[in-house]
Amino acid sequence: MKAARVHEYDTSFSGPEFLKVEDVPEPGISEPDDVIVRIGGAGLCRTDLHIIEGLWDDTRVVDLPYVLGHENAGWVEETGTWVRRFEQGDPVVIQPGLSDGLCLACMRGHDNHCENLVFLGIQQDGGFAEFLKVKERNLVRLPDGLEPRDAAPHADAGLTAFHAVKKASKVLEPDGTAVLIGIGGIGHVAIQALRDLSSARIIVLEKSDLALELARELGADSAIKSSDASVEEVLELTQGKGAEAVLDFVGEGDVPAQALAMTKMDGYYFVVGYGGTIEVPTMEMIATEKNIIGNLGGTTSELRELVTLAGEGKVQLTTRHYALDEINEAISDLHEGRIKGRGVLVP
Amino acid sequence: MKAARVHEYDTSFSGPEFLKVEDVPEPGISEPDDVIVRIGGAGLCRTDLHIIEGLWDDTRVVDLPYVLGHENAGWVEETGTWVRRFEQGDPVVIQPGLSDGLCLACMRGHDNHCENLVFLGIQQDGGFAEFLKVKERNLVRLPDGLEPRDAAPHADAGLTAFHAVKKASKVLEPDGTAVLIGIGGIGHVAIQALRDLSSARIIVLEKSDLALELARELGADSAIKSSDASVEEVLELTQGKGAEAVLDFVGEGDVPAQALAMTKMDGYYFVVGYGGTIEVPTMEMIATEKNIIGNLGGTTSELRELVTLAGEGKVQLTTRHYALDEINEAISDLHEGRIKGRGVLVP
Amino acid sequence: MKAARVHEYDTSFSGPEFLKVEDVPEPGISEPDDVIVRIGGAGLCRTDLHIIEGLWDDTRVVDLPYVLGHENAGWVEETGTWVRRFEQGDPVVIQPGLSDGLCLACMRGHDNHCENLVFLGIQQDGGFAEFLKVKERNLVRLPDGLEPRDAAPHADAGLTAFHAVKKASKVLEPDGTAVLIGIGGIGHVAIQALRDLSSARIIVLEKSDLALELARELGADSAIKSSDASVEEVLELTQGKGAEAVLDFVGEGDVPAQALAMTKMDGYYFVVGYGGTIEVPTMEMIATEKNIIGNLGGTTSELRELVTLAGEGKVQLTTRHYALDEINEAISDLHEGRIKGRGVLVP
Amino acid sequence: MKAARVHEYDTSFSGPEFLKVEDVPEPGISEPDDVIVRIGGAGLCRTDLHIIEGLWDDTRVVDLPYVLGHENAGWVEETGTWVRRFEQGDPVVIQPGLSDGLCLACMRGHDNHCENLVFLGIQQDGGFAEFLKVKERNLVRLPDGLEPRDAAPHADAGLTAFHAVKKASKVLEPDGTAVLIGIGGIGHVAIQALRDLSSARIIVLEKSDLALELARELGADSAIKSSDASVEEVLELTQGKGAEAVLDFVGEGDVPAQALAMTKMDGYYFVVGYGGTIEVPTMEMIATEKNIIGNLGGTTSELRELVTLAGEGKVQLTTRHYALDEINEAISDLHEGRIKGRGVLVP
Repeated sequence: MKAARVHEYDTSFSGPEFLKVEDVPEPGISEPDDVIVRIGGAGLCRTDLHIIEGLWDDTRVVDLPYVLGHENAGWVEETGTWVRRFEQGDPVVIQPGLSDGLCLACMRGHDNHCENLVFLGIQQDGGFAEFLKVKERNLVRLPDGLEPRDAAPHADAGLTAFHAVKKASKVLEPDGTAVLIGIGGIGHVAIQALRDLSSARIIVLEKSDLALELARELGADSAIKSSDASVEEVLELTQGKGAEAVLDFVGEGDVPAQALAMTKMDGYYFVVGYGGTIEVPTMEMIATEKNIIGNLGGTTSELRELVTLAGEGKVQLTTRHYALDEINEAISDLHEGRIKGRGVLVP
Repeated sequence: MKAARVHEYDTSFSGPEFLKVEDVPEPGISEPDDVIVRIGGAGLCRTDLHIIEGLWDDTRVVDLPYVLGHENAGWVEETGTWVRRFEQGDPVVIQPGLSDGLCLACMRGHDNHCENLVFLGIQQDGGFAEFLKVKERNLVRLPDGLEPRDAAPHADAGLTAFHAVKKASKVLEPDGTAVLIGIGGIGHVAIQALRDLSSARIIVLEKSDLALELARELGADSAIKSSDASVEEVLELTQGKGAEAVLDFVGEGDVPAQALAMTKMDGYYFVVGYGGTIEVPTMEMIATEKNIIGNLGGTTSELRELVTLAGEGKVQLTTRHYALDEINEAISDLHEGRIKGRGVLVP
Repeated sequence: MKAARVHEYDTSFSGPEFLKVEDVPEPGISEPDDVIVRIGGAGLCRTDLHIIEGLWDDTRVVDLPYVLGHENAGWVEETGTWVRRFEQGDPVVIQPGLSDGLCLACMRGHDNHCENLVFLGIQQDGGFAEFLKVKERNLVRLPDGLEPRDAAPHADAGLTAFHAVKKASKVLEPDGTAVLIGIGGIGHVAIQALRDLSSARIIVLEKSDLALELARELGADSAIKSSDASVEEVLELTQGKGAEAVLDFVGEGDVPAQALAMTKMDGYYFVVGYGGTIEVPTMEMIATEKNIIGNLGGTTSELRELVTLAGEGKVQLTTRHYALDEINEAISDLHEGRIKGRGVLVP
Repeated sequence: MKAARVHEYDTSFSGPEFLKVEDVPEPGISEPDDVIVRIGGAGLCRTDLHIIEGLWDDTRVVDLPYVLGHENAGWVEETGTWVRRFEQGDPVVIQPGLSDGLCLACMRGHDNHCENLVFLGIQQDGGFAEFLKVKERNLVRLPDGLEPRDAAPHADAGLTAFHAVKKASKVLEPDGTAVLIGIGGIGHVAIQALRDLSSARIIVLEKSDLALELARELGADSAIKSSDASVEEVLELTQGKGAEAVLDFVGEGDVPAQALAMTKMDGYYFVVGYGGTIEVPTMEMIATEKNIIGNLGGTTSELRELVTLAGEGKVQLTTRHYALDEINEAISDLHEGRIKGRGVLVP
């Protein structure tokens, strides 16, 4: 089958061939709970760029070359003898965090914290290929009407947004205020999911006018161009108190400090984007009783919840499709900021 | 009546007369929900030292001179016409965060976040005096057998410990592990309260041998002398995973970084002590899904819960008594680390 | 001022004069936290009919004659000297459960369980009058654009719906299913509130075609005419499993048994309507781990949340207005089922 | 191997041979996640008596004869090729509710609600035998110092108690009150577990003097002989308010009505015992906002928590041992009330 593989890291990101599209052996069923999925869509994520640059080298356990791609959806092609919940042709999305189902975290329903987690497309061959082999427990059935190539980004970008939003919705009172900072691939799902799960007022902070417009269309109550005055603007909109929940999809530069400053006493700052540093005096933490909350992927049951909402049209993704052969063009487009929404490979 | 007042800040903390013991007018009932309390005990807190040094000057609204003391207990002396729940002679402890009962935070039961909070002994005359006037809603009745002078430190040190421990107990599974760092006035209540509210294993980290011994007596499962190896020691005791909850009663120096490092994936770092800074990459927050939780005082209903446990002997305080005239000696003793447990003025 | 009072119980509900409209003394400020409200709207509730029939006689503490009316909104007319949050002309809705703010339940934010609760229009003169005296803590400010006469039913019908829905929203997963039985005054608020607070699928069961149509307009995913087949229909819509939450606004006849039967294993049956009996073998409770949840009014902070949503147009009431002189006609209309939505007196 | 099997139901429970001890084929590894456990202890439960009488006939799917026994512990004897967490000789306790790990309930951590649950000793051969075959996911390792024959009853009696107590501990405030009714096999674990997880006051109601004495030894604050006056006695001990949590391990006769009557407004009645009926007017549910909570077994992670506490000596079982050949004598003893604590077969 055809697959796009990393052969060596391109630390200067000079291209033009980041990945090599080549013939590799098709995966086959070897264990009774194996499932072969024919890939219908594989989302391209900023993390893929970081991998190409070699930034994740330390955390990988497989050797080069290997197949990239962790946002995958498709159709069941073949099943092992134990598999009862799926049959050939079923549309599915794949949880990228492969969990064992046996450790304490899994037994408690926190499979995103599996003690033996293996991450698809980072620690094991991913989905920039025609077929992918996973275990039955890593699959979530897509509802009717949701095509794999339209649902693929839910596997990671969507799930990350949903996981953080679900946590935020539990601490937001019905008349509370949430601030969402950065409306890209993750943030634009977050607005919709928060609309679905909460009646809180939504304030969006964004640099891009295009994204601000999108935020308004998706239901933001206020969409404000980010600036040095962002903290003051949020305080003004909240009677000087700040927001009960601040979701930060940027996580670098001035944003963490701003995000904390616009969080209400007793409120929650959800860290989703990354790259920068949080620096806060312990005195401030005890004078305000604020909470700083990390966020890591999402659970398989949350992925199921998310695609249920997507199937009902309550969460929609903006995507742009590429053929597998166009992978290097897609990578350039993402790197250069030429993709609106999420780029998806359609092998 | 006699009272110990700050007349001017002693920024070099040179003494010897930090507070002046002098005659001031007795407070009287002026509103129907007023209550006059005859002070039976007033705890001396490190914050009092900071106030004397002038560090809290910005946050105060009263003018010098004023009466210090925010950890107060005593007996009801006189009541306004509306007061039905208390009568003369009732033993009470006083919530130092005076709340209005009408704002949204109060209506939701979070009176420690009252929008109009006034803090006794900082923003209003405190309890280093024979009498103190407060509102009925600021009082909690002491159970039988608990003397005001023995209960006074519960008003702040105890309540702060209890509030943080109660939050920690909700995120600790029955077979979880909690690390408590620093076993002083707050920490020694925290061990006992955590024993009461949770079956989690308790690891204590402390510099002082005396405090380590106390920790063991109070029920710590492991009591370890803090060092550069503390993180490794906690990891070793937790199969390399870290603790579900880390309660930091120090909050300065290397402790915040160590505390975060010994917190488990998906675990909680509770900040209670203050003075230093937390610095953490957003990358680490999203790779581990850790939570950093601020803590501010406690609610009046928590104060009630705490003294109930104290009345049943489940939480005990170590105290040393001083007469009101000995206030400056007590302050020196606290500053020089000569008090075991909590110093309490007994006017 | 004019007021409509019960002079004697009409146990046969024969009328025509259920209440007497007459001149009574206007209330005046006597305590510093008193507020006089000029009534702008007073909702008429089925409970008022029960009171007229004498069914609540045992629970009342005032003597006849007294003024009925517990769903009140209006404008502040006069304030006691302590009142800082309200001034003349402010539009307000009145929490009918008058709480003391001092008991443990109030301190914990559960003022609907106040140990000294007094219920307006049942245990004290209500709002079928030109003016009503309450305490500052019983008032919630109406947002801009929400008229007292349109908001009055939120004080009880709306609040009861909102309180139960808020509890249900906490046990409903995003892809869960809620069944709402009976879409009258309370139920039609419940649909809207559940839409706001949750993404769960909503199935409505109702006898009246008119109410079914309203349910669909308000966002029910399925609106089904109640019948003996209701349980089977819900099971069919839920793959034989039942609904995670069933909210019963009827509470009599076959409904409680049906409601329990259509509740999922580990699911929640919320009892809001009353009149009948729940009968369930303990064997069934342990074989299914179902939960039966009572519901009583709502808290003052919930009333505030509700009117915030109402002010944003997220929850809308259907009302029909009557002059104070038309009270007996309104009572007949309600008794005969001639009012669509809620009848509101506009004095 | 030797095993004790039901050959036909003994509807009159006349005996003397309820089960036949006979030679049956040893189970062997057939799938890669299979584990063979050598039984070290198998608890005898009242449910076993009901099965012998034929009461559970409808719910079983296997044909007679079959091996009884659902409270099993032992040592790993042999493992399939996938099993990594256990090896020969490891001491284990067996979760009797065999779950699939793949359904939504399992993915959410609620494996006691697995959609494909199979119950050991009811729907599949149980542990009154020398060996038993289960899946790796059904096993929990025993901590050092806890012998299988001493831990076996934790698999069901202990787990049922622990599951209910854990839920109760989440609704009990630190100064709350819990009533435990009936201190047999389940109840005596419940007292200890509640002591571990909560600081609430514990009131025990029991008919047997022996059990009352045991309750006091295990830490009950009050242990009262049950009678018609039980409700009044609990009300008196709770200032007329009732208890925040009432755990009913009897579930028949007058107990459900009494239990509800002694539950506080807004409190929780946990149903654990069964046999009788709960009958409650919907009016009472809405006037009091009480909650009636079903309870079904426990999750595998809870079983792990429980044996951790047992290993630390925080929960102790009273047991009496029988050889496998003495099974019919053990059954008679249980039926006649001659066993103190739990009878355990030691094959």
